[in-house]
Amino acid sequence: MRTLSRRLSEGVTMVGECCARVAESKSSDFPVGTVIVHQYGWRTHAVLDTENQDPPRKAPADYPKDLPLSLLLGAVGIPGLTAYFGLLKCLEAKEGETVFVNAAAGATGSIVGQIARIKGCKAVGSAGSDAKVAWLKELGFDAAFNYKTVSSLDAALKEAAPNGIDCYFDNVGGDFTTTVLNHMNLYGRVAIVGGISTYNDKDPSSKGAFPYKAIQGKQLTLIGFVVSRWLDQWPQGKAQMMQWIKEGKIKYREHVTEGFENMPKAFIGMLVGENIGKAIVKL
Amino acid sequence: MRTLSRRLSEGVTMVGECCARVAESKSSDFPVGTVIVHQYGWRTHAVLDTENQDPPRKAPADYPKDLPLSLLLGAVGIPGLTAYFGLLKCLEAKEGETVFVNAAAGATGSIVGQIARIKGCKAVGSAGSDAKVAWLKELGFDAAFNYKTVSSLDAALKEAAPNGIDCYFDNVGGDFTTTVLNHMNLYGRVAIVGGISTYNDKDPSSKGAFPYKAIQGKQLTLIGFVVSRWLDQWPQGKAQMMQWIKEGKIKYREHVTEGFENMPKAFIGMLVGENIGKAIVKL
Repeated sequence: MRTLSRRLSEGVTMVGECCARVAESKSSDFPVGTVIVHQYGWRTHAVLDTENQDPPRKAPADYPKDLPLSLLLGAVGIPGLTAYFGLLKCLEAKEGETVFVNAAAGATGSIVGQIARIKGCKAVGSAGSDAKVAWLKELGFDAAFNYKTVSSLDAALKEAAPNGIDCYFDNVGGDFTTTVLNHMNLYGRVAIVGGISTYNDKDPSSKGAFPYKAIQGKQLTLIGFVVSRWLDQWPQGKAQMMQWIKEGKIKYREHVTEGFENMPKAFIGMLVGENIGKAIVKL
Repeated sequence: MRTLSRRLSEGVTMVGECCARVAESKSSDFPVGTVIVHQYGWRTHAVLDTENQDPPRKAPADYPKDLPLSLLLGAVGIPGLTAYFGLLKCLEAKEGETVFVNAAAGATGSIVGQIARIKGCKAVGSAGSDAKVAWLKELGFDAAFNYKTVSSLDAALKEAAPNGIDCYFDNVGGDFTTTVLNHMNLYGRVAIVGGISTYNDKDPSSKGAFPYKAIQGKQLTLIGFVVSRWLDQWPQGKAQMMQWIKEGKIKYREHVTEGFENMPKAFIGMLVGENIGKAIVKL
């Protein structure tokens, strides 16, 4: 989703992450058959220059054979690592605390709530359909609500998190966040991860007032982050995610669209909230 | 200044901190002659109930005889400690970094810049008069400007902090802060200390847009704080401030008004920016 903030114009290859297998190679580091993840955008095939550009990431050597490789784009990739490092490094969620995440049925949000549960936190999520909310409850979220149908976000948060929010994992931004901050506890932490509510604005800073009073009064800490901040710790993060998935502690869902020609449809569907879990296009 | 955010109504004693000497006592902990700081508000004399209410703070036992006691309300009191803990604990300012502080000629701001210099940082400040700016330069600020007379805050920051800002100590809030955030470096830290630009607003959150894009894009950390957060470390903080003052490394100024009847005038003067350094009323 963050790719949206990059400037795209007609004639430029659409950005996006791809999991692929090496079909031909002149590099001994990437023999034929190697599974990689690259960011060369929307392509059926890509020619990667591993000498002059950042080399693609390889699948972990111990990647379980019974897991779909597409998880390298989801729970064992950037969305999963964003949840993992965001919750544990950035928010430093502690046992007994209340964690709130929005876009909770997405590739990242759904994992935020599950890791929160593993760590002994109370997990609260919001999403945009009743089907998503039902899935969140299946995943073990302590409370979840459909933000489109509640009487007000204020009332929904009061009910779902009656003791206030200690950690807020924010994928949405804008007015939504300004409201959530009023429900934070003293010394609460906020991870500013995405701002999907602002992506279509010409000036993303224009939506939502600066919640100065809440930040100062409740002594909140707001941290903007991109997951590459912990690049050196990705191997440990991936190993932990793979282990939790094998143990059944982390569940995932993929919204799979078939065919390259359907990529625009899949992309727009993701933006308007049609998918549950990670949006994947199978080529 | 923070007292403004408390709700005051007619007939309630105006809030404010007072340095006083015990004239009569029934408490062996506070014998006659003890110098204390209390928060019983605007009074010429106060009767303190040390058993049922928070006891007043005593002056440090080793408080230097040649320093005015009024510094217990300034450089060796809450304003000084706010600068000390805000800069070192909250912003974690490191050698070589650029520190920007607004309301820099105030009781707190002037000390922020001086501690920044002691720690090997570049200190940049803004204030509301040329006399204040001149004083900041005397104090050793690397750059300072009068925000009321510069062509724009953007241009002034670009000139004063050409390499960007790493640590921002914010006493002002509102639009001012939204602009400053655009000048922050990657991983910059912001201490949300006061919001004087918003104190007269009915809804203080309404001024200034939520600078979401800057926070996320630059991976900033914003921390709201009140100095009592480090109450257990105040003795070390005071000891360090007293030492720096004795060594001449921290200079201070007081804006002294004489007479209880002039308190309203002094208070309003402080709010409209007439004072340089700590506003003191001598009774």
